[in-house]
Amino acid sequence: MKHWIIAGPCAVESYDLFSETARAVKRAGATHLRGGLYKMRTHNASFQGLGSEGFQVVKAVKEETGLPYVCEITDPRQLAPLEEIVDCFQVGARNMHNTALLKELGRTQKPVILKRAFSAYYEEWVAAADYIRHAGNPHVILCERGIRTFETAVRNTLDLTSVVYMKLRHGLDVLVDPSHATGQKDLIPPLALAAMMAGAAGLMLEVHPRPKEALSDGPQALLPCDFHALIEQVMALYKHVPSSEKRDHSAAL
Amino acid sequence: MKHWIIAGPCAVESYDLFSETARAVKRAGATHLRGGLYKMRTHNASFQGLGSEGFQVVKAVKEETGLPYVCEITDPRQLAPLEEIVDCFQVGARNMHNTALLKELGRTQKPVILKRAFSAYYEEWVAAADYIRHAGNPHVILCERGIRTFETAVRNTLDLTSVVYMKLRHGLDVLVDPSHATGQKDLIPPLALAAMMAGAAGLMLEVHPRPKEALSDGPQALLPCDFHALIEQVMALYKHVPSSEKRDHSAAL
Amino acid sequence: MKHWIIAGPCAVESYDLFSETARAVKRAGATHLRGGLYKMRTHNASFQGLGSEGFQVVKAVKEETGLPYVCEITDPRQLAPLEEIVDCFQVGARNMHNTALLKELGRTQKPVILKRAFSAYYEEWVAAADYIRHAGNPHVILCERGIRTFETAVRNTLDLTSVVYMKLRHGLDVLVDPSHATGQKDLIPPLALAAMMAGAAGLMLEVHPRPKEALSDGPQALLPCDFHALIEQVMALYKHVPSSEKRDHSAAL
Amino acid sequence: MKHWIIAGPCAVESYDLFSETARAVKRAGATHLRGGLYKMRTHNASFQGLGSEGFQVVKAVKEETGLPYVCEITDPRQLAPLEEIVDCFQVGARNMHNTALLKELGRTQKPVILKRAFSAYYEEWVAAADYIRHAGNPHVILCERGIRTFETAVRNTLDLTSVVYMKLRHGLDVLVDPSHATGQKDLIPPLALAAMMAGAAGLMLEVHPRPKEALSDGPQALLPCDFHALIEQVMALYKHVPSSEKRDHSAAL
Repeated sequence: MKHWIIAGPCAVESYDLFSETARAVKRAGATHLRGGLYKMRTHNASFQGLGSEGFQVVKAVKEETGLPYVCEITDPRQLAPLEEIVDCFQVGARNMHNTALLKELGRTQKPVILKRAFSAYYEEWVAAADYIRHAGNPHVILCERGIRTFETAVRNTLDLTSVVYMKLRHGLDVLVDPSHATGQKDLIPPLALAAMMAGAAGLMLEVHPRPKEALSDGPQALLPCDFHALIEQVMALYKHVPSSEKRDHSAAL
Repeated sequence: MKHWIIAGPCAVESYDLFSETARAVKRAGATHLRGGLYKMRTHNASFQGLGSEGFQVVKAVKEETGLPYVCEITDPRQLAPLEEIVDCFQVGARNMHNTALLKELGRTQKPVILKRAFSAYYEEWVAAADYIRHAGNPHVILCERGIRTFETAVRNTLDLTSVVYMKLRHGLDVLVDPSHATGQKDLIPPLALAAMMAGAAGLMLEVHPRPKEALSDGPQALLPCDFHALIEQVMALYKHVPSSEKRDHSAAL
Repeated sequence: MKHWIIAGPCAVESYDLFSETARAVKRAGATHLRGGLYKMRTHNASFQGLGSEGFQVVKAVKEETGLPYVCEITDPRQLAPLEEIVDCFQVGARNMHNTALLKELGRTQKPVILKRAFSAYYEEWVAAADYIRHAGNPHVILCERGIRTFETAVRNTLDLTSVVYMKLRHGLDVLVDPSHATGQKDLIPPLALAAMMAGAAGLMLEVHPRPKEALSDGPQALLPCDFHALIEQVMALYKHVPSSEKRDHSAAL
Repeated sequence: MKHWIIAGPCAVESYDLFSETARAVKRAGATHLRGGLYKMRTHNASFQGLGSEGFQVVKAVKEETGLPYVCEITDPRQLAPLEEIVDCFQVGARNMHNTALLKELGRTQKPVILKRAFSAYYEEWVAAADYIRHAGNPHVILCERGIRTFETAVRNTLDLTSVVYMKLRHGLDVLVDPSHATGQKDLIPPLALAAMMAGAAGLMLEVHPRPKEALSDGPQALLPCDFHALIEQVMALYKHVPSSEKRDHSAAL
């Protein structure tokens, strides 16, 4: 299995919770651990993340599990401190157009996951990746997380054509985040399998052992057991992906 | 293989072409034959279809291949004449909101494929199906053909979440038409496979032996050989779809 | 005042109501009376209009007020009967792509108001008007009624750029319907005035003496007194529209 | 005239050009001068602005004209240096969701013009303004600059309902930027007048004496003479705005 399976809670909330979740997603086959320290929230009164107070938690949990850690960066001034604990940076949808942040990420050599903005054209997304590359960091991987359309029954509209388009027209790899795309956990597994068949380089999934207690995004979090079942299906499916479609994405880290 | 594989040219253009295409798609595994007689075109000067002049062509080709024939209906006054040659009606995206047509389709017992309008909410799509059902015809199957969003790099944005949502929230089957969704033939195969993994009840695909000569929609037509390769992949994949997801859609006809 | 001010209830519900509303909008300055007989509703269980049972009501109220009557047509088979009582046909947003209906409207010489579909490109809208014109009826006037976007706080997004674009790029007149665009009656007056400044050929407004009792679209109906105040503002404003922008739209009838 | 009329070139390109344009817009009635130093561009190879090298130009031109200067800020680290020359900060559409920047702007007491992101819900826009206010700066004014929809004939879709909605539902003032909304200069004047009738707190307009030589956004720049004619129309119109709608926005500076 050469794909990325990035899993973990929406946010690092406490040592106990992050450690419990990290160990569960590792057992289930995750290749990377996620969990935000700086959250981008619509409302300023919402939970904004632990910030630097969460660094010791992350260090401890990385040591326990050995999993590389993916963390969203939301301010160019966070780069230096985050570099000590982060293995892969993530730029969220709300910051895809934030060129000051993109240029700053050219100063690290760690991979950057670049999520698509709510209404970014494919060409704007590629151009945003180019900001990072031209600033000195060639390790950029895209992430489709759903776009904003007229439809209101789901949180966003997952656009799997982007996965195919970016591969065939630009030679770029795309991860898929069906958790943010749908916001409804029972819709996630079939779309995760569909994403893999479309040629996704991997999945980013929110997992929480007690979703109702999550400080953010609970309704879209998978239980560890559901995550485990899904990863088994993905692995079984992957054996049947045409070999011409198989690529080794593990080198990116 | 219990899914619907509906294939054929965008429009019935001539006996020779329709017969050649029909025999090719049958050999490749199509379960239904498509080819429009009344085309919905943006511009009134564009080719509008053969209309009733194509009836003899359709009859002859159905006899040759034994394939059931799917045909778009665009006017309530076409129901009676079309019923003689059509096995399954199709309502196009432009007519999903045409309630006069929907009500008229309650007067037949043949299945109706109801395409999603360019910007129909899931709930409007279900409500359009209900117009047909409440008028007397319970045999309605939905078809996702891409929605209209801000993105311009592809013809429409294929929304595979609709397939999952309609199954889980409404118990409705959804066919997927990746030809109209993308408008670019090399994007079709990976998205067709993704659609099947999302739980689509089948595929609707445009196939043309010489796409450059097509009077409409040439750039999105698959060659018969490409269609054949895709159907083999779909069949191989289907063996690995979790059995809980397998349903027999053949009874609908 | 050479612009069209089309006003009346969403639907013809009864003689008493239609007559009362018609007399009120006439007093306030309306140039045309509206009120649907065949309603396009999302759900088949919703009120669908009186149909031909309302013809006598319409005839009586036209005679009382002398106002020309604007009526939506939803099925090509309605053309002949409606032509006896209708002075101006209306094609609703849901039928803008219904080419069978558009072609049928080429068989009358009465003006046709063509509403923009939920997500129609400007060029599709012009092409839809061309279907009517090429079928023999040159009297087409467009109507902007809001488009479908991601925004959910209002019913639709009123696009006043369409008014300017159609005039400057295509020489076409556009009416504006702020009632359907917003769905919220207190938003209507400022947008009606803005529409006139953008160069609208007139306004289409829903007026109902007791909106809470309306069988459809009550929340967007203006009271007759609010309608009166708005028309006075429009007339005062119109004196200050640059004379180069003034055109006489009354000839269209 | 108590409204804001913010005008100037897209970017500060040179002393000669900025001075010439500033004097022209002042003569024509502008209340504020605009001209970017840090440009947000889709492509990293596009002109990114003069940055701090343009500070002396801005100081000189402000002294010549006495006009307050509006400047976009694109990085929280620019706040301290920009505060010396800027009278009013602007957050561009691409940074409306950039909470690190919004929070930083709570540290100044100068007014902040907050443009609406490409696909921001009204409620997200209000929430972004709240980030600035809760961080300590109450002087926030919104700016509608067009949203991203399916329509491609114009650069963006100007949403004048936002002006009415923000005033009636949230008591917030909204400036309108028809230059970015349309991207086509002949569409600007009618929409500017429409915006004022909808209740806009003012206009933001791009003016350039030789648009074809502009390093960015030339096609949407008005000539000084066209700007002059438009402002005269706006002033004439404003006399006829219902007095209940008139408010003194000059206090905001």
